[in-house]
Amino acid sequence: MADSTVKPDSPLDNIRIVLVETSHPGNLGAVARAMKVMGLSCLYLVDPRCEIDAEARARASGAVDVLEQAVVCSDLDAALHGAVFTAATTSRRRDLPHPAYTPRQAAPELLARAQTGPVALVFGSETYGLSNAQLAKCQWLINIPSNPAYMSLNLGAAVQVLAYELRCTLEDAVLPLPAFEAARHEEVEALLAELETVLKAIGFLDPRHPKRLMPRLRRFFARAGLEKEEVAIWRGIVNAVRSQRSHN
Amino acid sequence: MADSTVKPDSPLDNIRIVLVETSHPGNLGAVARAMKVMGLSCLYLVDPRCEIDAEARARASGAVDVLEQAVVCSDLDAALHGAVFTAATTSRRRDLPHPAYTPRQAAPELLARAQTGPVALVFGSETYGLSNAQLAKCQWLINIPSNPAYMSLNLGAAVQVLAYELRCTLEDAVLPLPAFEAARHEEVEALLAELETVLKAIGFLDPRHPKRLMPRLRRFFARAGLEKEEVAIWRGIVNAVRSQRSHN
Repeated sequence: MADSTVKPDSPLDNIRIVLVETSHPGNLGAVARAMKVMGLSCLYLVDPRCEIDAEARARASGAVDVLEQAVVCSDLDAALHGAVFTAATTSRRRDLPHPAYTPRQAAPELLARAQTGPVALVFGSETYGLSNAQLAKCQWLINIPSNPAYMSLNLGAAVQVLAYELRCTLEDAVLPLPAFEAARHEEVEALLAELETVLKAIGFLDPRHPKRLMPRLRRFFARAGLEKEEVAIWRGIVNAVRSQRSHN
Repeated sequence: MADSTVKPDSPLDNIRIVLVETSHPGNLGAVARAMKVMGLSCLYLVDPRCEIDAEARARASGAVDVLEQAVVCSDLDAALHGAVFTAATTSRRRDLPHPAYTPRQAAPELLARAQTGPVALVFGSETYGLSNAQLAKCQWLINIPSNPAYMSLNLGAAVQVLAYELRCTLEDAVLPLPAFEAARHEEVEALLAELETVLKAIGFLDPRHPKRLMPRLRRFFARAGLEKEEVAIWRGIVNAVRSQRSHN
């Protein structure tokens, strides 16, 4: 087929746009329109600070359906539940950077992952962006190139750029299929929680002086990109350490 | 400064965004912001059907200067005056014989031309786009890829996509790698050996039935790409587990 249009069961259906603490209804509408015009439809709202009101609907134009199907969550973990891959957009400089890519660099990998399950792209609030804790929950950072003298990209515009990159890349690319099944967000979070507990139990992590240990480990696991079986291995190791303790 | 033979600092300074018969002030603001955030500043308005009002300024955010410096023209020819190259954005099917490109295909040539003089990118009105007569005045057509089921790209979003493409192409958009020191081969090998020893000690690795555990862990660490400090962290954890054992 010479036709370059996207097929019905497109990886774009597995791209989940996650907006954290959005405060302007107009931006909700702009995001919905930006998504639909590029073929995305899955919108999650984490603790939205505004309503889907008349302004939101007006700005959504013909994409009101995307707004109306939006899933509202109380926290970021809920919005990342089930995701096989997570990426956060940010313009911040990081003292402890996760791998950071431009949308163009990231798009092929995001689409490849989206062939295996939901991929979450997280956007912070208009005023504050994402907190370090929120960023740390994501595996990759995405930096949209911008003018160093004025980096204030509008939320809807940021989603537009990402969605455009995904569509362009999809229309161009031949995608490799990953041979292993990626762990889900909540499985990785559960592992990290167990690891933290056992590191305290064996005295390696001092709760009074945690330093940067857990963020460092979090970053390490993010970079590796855990597979399902690897989560099982690590949980097995953590359990073995824990049962050693209980035999003391 | 008025000498037109003087090269601009950046080819982006020679990109002229031309909006024809824009009817929503909010879109004027969104366009100004989309431009400035990518480093563009030259805005022409052909026969605008709205004022640069409070809504336009609000949506422009920190890019009000771009709005205030906008040149208002009564017709398209005036806005194209002095341009060495002209391109019109359209979603229409090409019954016109002009060459049509995606933004990604067009960007390198647009930037190359912008090194020689002003390059005009023309965007039609929200409702009607550009007339055939207006399209015919431009040398190229630019089609932004979109969802065939919903092609209604917002004007600000369209300018954002073009401006983003120009900036990415100009920067060649490669982010510097994080400045962390990679672990040496022998450090990783030593860690893996210590890990294997302690996994045997805690009974997680059975030497008679090792299965694929160490190859799996080896693969995991290889994929992550250990840094020097991370080796220190993991060796610290291994030592903490070992000293738990010795306290038994």
